[in-house]
Amino acid sequence: MSTIGLDIGGANLKAAHEDGAVRTVAFALWSAPERLEAALARLVGALPPCDRLAVTMTAELCDCFETKRDGVNHVLDAATKIAGEREVRIWITDGCFVSPDEARAAPLGCAAANWHALATWAAGRHLEGRSLLMDVGSTTTDLIPLARGCVAARGLTDAERLATGELVYLGVRRTPLMALGPSIGFRERVHGLMAERFADTYDVFLLTGDLDERPHDTDSADGRPLTRGHAAARLVRMIGADLEMVSHDEASALAEAFRARALDRIASAVRPMGEFDRVIVSGGGAFLAVAAARSACPNAAVVRLADELGEVGAEAACAWAVARLAAQ
Amino acid sequence: MSTIGLDIGGANLKAAHEDGAVRTVAFALWSAPERLEAALARLVGALPPCDRLAVTMTAELCDCFETKRDGVNHVLDAATKIAGEREVRIWITDGCFVSPDEARAAPLGCAAANWHALATWAAGRHLEGRSLLMDVGSTTTDLIPLARGCVAARGLTDAERLATGELVYLGVRRTPLMALGPSIGFRERVHGLMAERFADTYDVFLLTGDLDERPHDTDSADGRPLTRGHAAARLVRMIGADLEMVSHDEASALAEAFRARALDRIASAVRPMGEFDRVIVSGGGAFLAVAAARSACPNAAVVRLADELGEVGAEAACAWAVARLAAQ
Repeated sequence: MSTIGLDIGGANLKAAHEDGAVRTVAFALWSAPERLEAALARLVGALPPCDRLAVTMTAELCDCFETKRDGVNHVLDAATKIAGEREVRIWITDGCFVSPDEARAAPLGCAAANWHALATWAAGRHLEGRSLLMDVGSTTTDLIPLARGCVAARGLTDAERLATGELVYLGVRRTPLMALGPSIGFRERVHGLMAERFADTYDVFLLTGDLDERPHDTDSADGRPLTRGHAAARLVRMIGADLEMVSHDEASALAEAFRARALDRIASAVRPMGEFDRVIVSGGGAFLAVAAARSACPNAAVVRLADELGEVGAEAACAWAVARLAAQ
Repeated sequence: MSTIGLDIGGANLKAAHEDGAVRTVAFALWSAPERLEAALARLVGALPPCDRLAVTMTAELCDCFETKRDGVNHVLDAATKIAGEREVRIWITDGCFVSPDEARAAPLGCAAANWHALATWAAGRHLEGRSLLMDVGSTTTDLIPLARGCVAARGLTDAERLATGELVYLGVRRTPLMALGPSIGFRERVHGLMAERFADTYDVFLLTGDLDERPHDTDSADGRPLTRGHAAARLVRMIGADLEMVSHDEASALAEAFRARALDRIASAVRPMGEFDRVIVSGGGAFLAVAAARSACPNAAVVRLADELGEVGAEAACAWAVARLAAQ
C-alpha cells in the first residue's frame, strides 16, 4: 500500500510520495479557496500513483475562512474529493491519524498539525537525550522540544504555541519587515519603520547573501523581481528612503541589522526552553536556524534534517513526514 | 483669485476649496497610478471653480514608484494636466510654495510635505509659547513641535522624521496589527502575534468603541464589513484563535491591550520632545491624540483643530491648510 503525504498550507501545497518523489507548488489559497481541489488534483497527479493520502494542513488559518472549523472542513472536502476511492488519513496533534469524519468532529486537533507530524517523525530518529527541532520556514519558525523519542511541546494549537513561544511567526521569505519593528538601527541611530508591506524577509536574506536571486519570480512586496537591486530598493523604503538617498552599502548594512533582529527573536524564544543535547534544523531557513542554535544552545550538536532527507525532501518535510508516518 | 488645496496621498485624495467646501475620496494609487489624473479631475470638478491649485502630497512613497523622484514627477504630471491654464503651486518643507518645475528639480522638498503645510498653518494660529501639533491619521502620526509661530521640527523628509520620532508610522485605521507586535498580553500571558495582515487598527478601535461601524465598507483585512462582530473575528486571528475559541468579551479585552500599546507608542515618542504649553490635536484619530497628550504632556492645554476647522474641514486638514496658505 503506497502513500502520498500532503501538507496543505495557505501559500504552498506540498506533496511527497512514500517512494521519495516530492513536489511543491505555490497556491494563494486565500484568494481562490474554490480552486483548492483542482490544484491538489494536479499536484497529486504529477506524482506516481498511490493507494492512500495522508494529510496535514495549516491552510485553515487563512482569513477566507470565518473559523478554523470552516477552514478544516474546506480542506477535508477537497482532499476527500480528489482521493476518490482511496483512503484518506488525517494527522492530529494527539500523535495519530484519524478519518476525515473524526477530524471534522474535532477540527482543532488537525488544524495546523503539520509541525507535529514532522516533530513526531524526527523524534523517532533521535531516541536519546533532549532534542530541539528548529524548523525555520518561509513564514514561521517552529521550536519543538523532543524527549525520549516523543514530542514534548507544551502547546498544541497555534494559539497555545504562540503563547508558549514554540511558534514564532517569523520566516525567511514572507514575513513583512514591519513585524520586525517598530524600529531598527541605521546610520548609528534608532530609526522608526514604516508600517507598510514595502519589503519582506526575502529581501533581507537576498542582501545578506543567505538566499539566492530569483530574477523571474515577482512574488515580492512591490511585484518587482527577487534580485538584490530591487531588494535594496524595497528595503530602504521601510525607513522612508530610496536608492537616491541611501547607497547600496548602506542598504546592505540595514539588511544585516534586520538579520540580527530576526536571529535575536528566534534565539530569545529558544533560551527559556532550557538545555538541549542536539538541535535538529530544517526548513528553507536552516541557515538562520543554525545561527540561532549556536547562539542559544552553544553546547548542543547541530543536526541538519536535510542531511537525512536530502535537500528536496527537506523542502516538503512535513508532507514527507506524514507520508512516512502513514506508511509505518 | 480662488484656490483649491489638494492633498494627494497613496490611499486618499483630499481637496479643500478656499471657500470651505471639502471633499475626500479613497483612491488606491499604488494599484492604478495611471488613473490618478482622472481621479483628481473628478475630485476637483466636484468642488466650486477655482483659479489656482495648491498641492501637497505623500503619494510619492507608494512602491509603484521606484524612487521618490519618480513618484513626485508622476503626481506633478497629474496635477499640472488637470490644472490646464490655472496656476499650480507646490508646498515645500522650506515653508513656501514653488512652481512644478522647481519642485521637479528638488523632489525631496515636496515629498511628504503635507504635514508641514498643516503645521505651518497651525503655527500661525498659536504665536505664543511652545505647541505640539499631534495629528493622528488613518496610517501615521505626526508630532510637530511649533515655537513662536514657526514649525520647529528637527526632521523634514520621511526618513529624517522616522529617525527623530516626529513621524510615528501608526494610525487608527490602516495600520496592520503585526506592526504593534511582536507580542501582546492576552489571558494574563504574553502572546506572540501572527505576522499576517489579519487585522488593522480600525478593528481595534471599533471594539473599543472609539470608531463607528461602517457596515457597507469592506475595506478591511479580510474583505468583510467594518462591524464589531467581524472586527472581533479578525482581531483574534492575530493570536491564532477564532470566535469558537475566544469569547467576544475576551476579544474586547484584546482590543484594549492593542489600544494601550498604540497609546504607549505615541506617548513614548512625545516624551523626549520636552514640555509644551499646548497640544493641538487633529486627524481621524484625535481621540487617541487626546489620550496620548494627557499621558505625555499632563500640564499642557489640549486644543482641538476640529474646533477651529469644523469636523469636515479637519478631515481634509492638510488640503485645507495648503489652500489657506496659498490664499494668504
